[in-house]
Amino acid sequence: MAKITHVSPLAPATFPTLPEIKGADFATVEAGIKYAGRKDVMLARLAAGSSIAGVFTRSATRSAAVLDCQEKISLQSDAGAAIIVNAGNANAFTGRNGIEATKAVTGAVAQTLSLPESRVFSSSTGVIGEPLPFEKITNKLSEMREALSPGKMKDAAEAIRTTDTFAKASAAEFEVDGQVVNIAGIAKGSGMIAPDMATMLVYIFTDAKVEQALLQEMLSELTDLTFNNITVDSDTSTSDTLLLGATGASGVEISNREGPFYQALHQVMLDLAHQVVRDGEGATKFVTVNVTGAETAKDARAHALAIANSPLVKTAIAGEDPNWGRVVMAIGKSGASADRDRLTIRFGDILVAENGWVSPNYKEADGASYMKQQDLEISVDLGLGDGDATVWTCDLTHGYITINADYRS
Amino acid sequence: MAKITHVSPLAPATFPTLPEIKGADFATVEAGIKYAGRKDVMLARLAAGSSIAGVFTRSATRSAAVLDCQEKISLQSDAGAAIIVNAGNANAFTGRNGIEATKAVTGAVAQTLSLPESRVFSSSTGVIGEPLPFEKITNKLSEMREALSPGKMKDAAEAIRTTDTFAKASAAEFEVDGQVVNIAGIAKGSGMIAPDMATMLVYIFTDAKVEQALLQEMLSELTDLTFNNITVDSDTSTSDTLLLGATGASGVEISNREGPFYQALHQVMLDLAHQVVRDGEGATKFVTVNVTGAETAKDARAHALAIANSPLVKTAIAGEDPNWGRVVMAIGKSGASADRDRLTIRFGDILVAENGWVSPNYKEADGASYMKQQDLEISVDLGLGDGDATVWTCDLTHGYITINADYRS
Repeated sequence: MAKITHVSPLAPATFPTLPEIKGADFATVEAGIKYAGRKDVMLARLAAGSSIAGVFTRSATRSAAVLDCQEKISLQSDAGAAIIVNAGNANAFTGRNGIEATKAVTGAVAQTLSLPESRVFSSSTGVIGEPLPFEKITNKLSEMREALSPGKMKDAAEAIRTTDTFAKASAAEFEVDGQVVNIAGIAKGSGMIAPDMATMLVYIFTDAKVEQALLQEMLSELTDLTFNNITVDSDTSTSDTLLLGATGASGVEISNREGPFYQALHQVMLDLAHQVVRDGEGATKFVTVNVTGAETAKDARAHALAIANSPLVKTAIAGEDPNWGRVVMAIGKSGASADRDRLTIRFGDILVAENGWVSPNYKEADGASYMKQQDLEISVDLGLGDGDATVWTCDLTHGYITINADYRS
Repeated sequence: MAKITHVSPLAPATFPTLPEIKGADFATVEAGIKYAGRKDVMLARLAAGSSIAGVFTRSATRSAAVLDCQEKISLQSDAGAAIIVNAGNANAFTGRNGIEATKAVTGAVAQTLSLPESRVFSSSTGVIGEPLPFEKITNKLSEMREALSPGKMKDAAEAIRTTDTFAKASAAEFEVDGQVVNIAGIAKGSGMIAPDMATMLVYIFTDAKVEQALLQEMLSELTDLTFNNITVDSDTSTSDTLLLGATGASGVEISNREGPFYQALHQVMLDLAHQVVRDGEGATKFVTVNVTGAETAKDARAHALAIANSPLVKTAIAGEDPNWGRVVMAIGKSGASADRDRLTIRFGDILVAENGWVSPNYKEADGASYMKQQDLEISVDLGLGDGDATVWTCDLTHGYITINADYRS
């Protein structure tokens, strides 16, 4: 496996200060599943009365842990809940053995924490196709139970990393009638990342009180605006899992979609989604692709994803080449409606192309200078209707090839 | 622009011997459109009575030359025909100027060769978005007319190259009642190559006599078995054009789909399609992806393309890593039906995975040894039905990044 020695140049300058989420405790441990000398398992325990919502990969070859989570996610219970995650082994495409390994882990967590097994959710991330040495996890559960505490969410973010070059977390808070509500989440992921899935591994916690059906509705809706609109390499993982736990311990009840909870949750999810792109394998540029004026929102998303996933667009960005011709190419191949002669293309604020050709005022030197920035914005207006979409991606570099020609994932 | 100094390691050992196609003459010239010191324009003249069939890119942003060809292709005429092609400038996304440049070139060719303008087909390949200096072409037409001869098809294959590292050609012949019929074709293309399009620039000639509607039917059908099943980088060009000219000069008339003409044409098209993949930008491995047992042929193709286009599969192949887990991932994300526990995966003849897990007899050393070969075969059986498909691709290497982070296409 390629040794990851550098932190992504796009990483946030500092790790955020995470609030303690009342009702949510964390523990981590060195189980030695694949990596030596680092924590590789995290356990989260959610207090009695917590609601859990989840979104999962749509891969037809999804892992045993994902299938197990999907069976449990909409069951109602006031018994509390737990989330157990290991890095280093995805327990995916491991046949019957994989199902048994998942059951062994979730069953042991249930016993250790005195929870029903239906309230224990698990994820595994890492190599596909190798048996999960689940005893390495179950042997550590008593130790982890003793260590559970609300202040260890940062450790949890560290423990779930695989090829990630930095730990990812985000938090937001708001007040209702003088009562503070906190939301905090962690994520891992930097390759095998594309929309049409839940996404990577993401765990978000809040002390708001939210009924499960409403929590699920908000999570699904916001996933379409955040994690489903990021792409690193157009590849979709077999293990992607996003879980949102609401402990209710703040005493603040959220009973409708509108308002500060939805906004704060959106902020945390978008920040985590951007951090995953910023840790895209080999990434040196963070790119926002805006598409407006498409016939429909679906068309806009198809165009935006065609641009964001095009190897030729992504390599041009890596080369700091303002190659708007490749943007035109990507729009042309997307399969969605476009009229060549109505296209307007901007790099940042620079008008590059309009009316089917390069803009008369565009200077190549302006484009070339703009492309040297680390955060880039490519905006396309189709001139056809009201559909719009925004997608976030990164460039395609030698670093991606180096990581993926060597790393067994 | 990145200088292409190496020939692809996958290139055929020798350039094929091309037969003269009675009724088809060729000329090439150094017009200096972008490249210096090399031929960059080819002219082909087809005798009176020739039929022409064509397949073109489905890009919504296709070039003026493609739109012009599409308008003309199904018109019937016995007046003969011409094909004019330049490298170095795609005349794509060049607005009204682009349409005028195409008209200027086709009009001048028509006048020079005393043909109706509706019988002159043109293609342009190279940089997108720059005005085509069409006078550099029209100024050379008289010179090219004088040089027209049946023996210059190899020169034509050289003249249409852009990032190609070798010239591409293929030929086949068969006899009908002692009469020899020849088919010979040339192609260019090594990046911006994906199916759901006609493909690159490909020109095929035969001295068989074939009525236009039948010629078109055979060409379209065989395109789906050849050029539409290759992919280098999932990007689709704005200029892809495939033209097939039948001069009739052999005196042999082909009046139905069955028989040696269809087979010989299939052979030439498949050979040219494979050569395009073998010149895939940065390619070091030629990969055949076979999918069988899918619910439908459409599902099989979706799975095969998902595998062939996956950056993670392609980088694993570049790294000679028998990473079948990434094949499972690609099947999972394709959107077509799959049952994880019925999958069978083979690398060459090596049974790698079956029944939802690695095969008990599979040895990693066998897979690793197989992956060192230059020509690889990945075969997946879905175990669901009778749908099958074969797709050809190459690996994704540092060479692709180097070429495309610098070359302005």
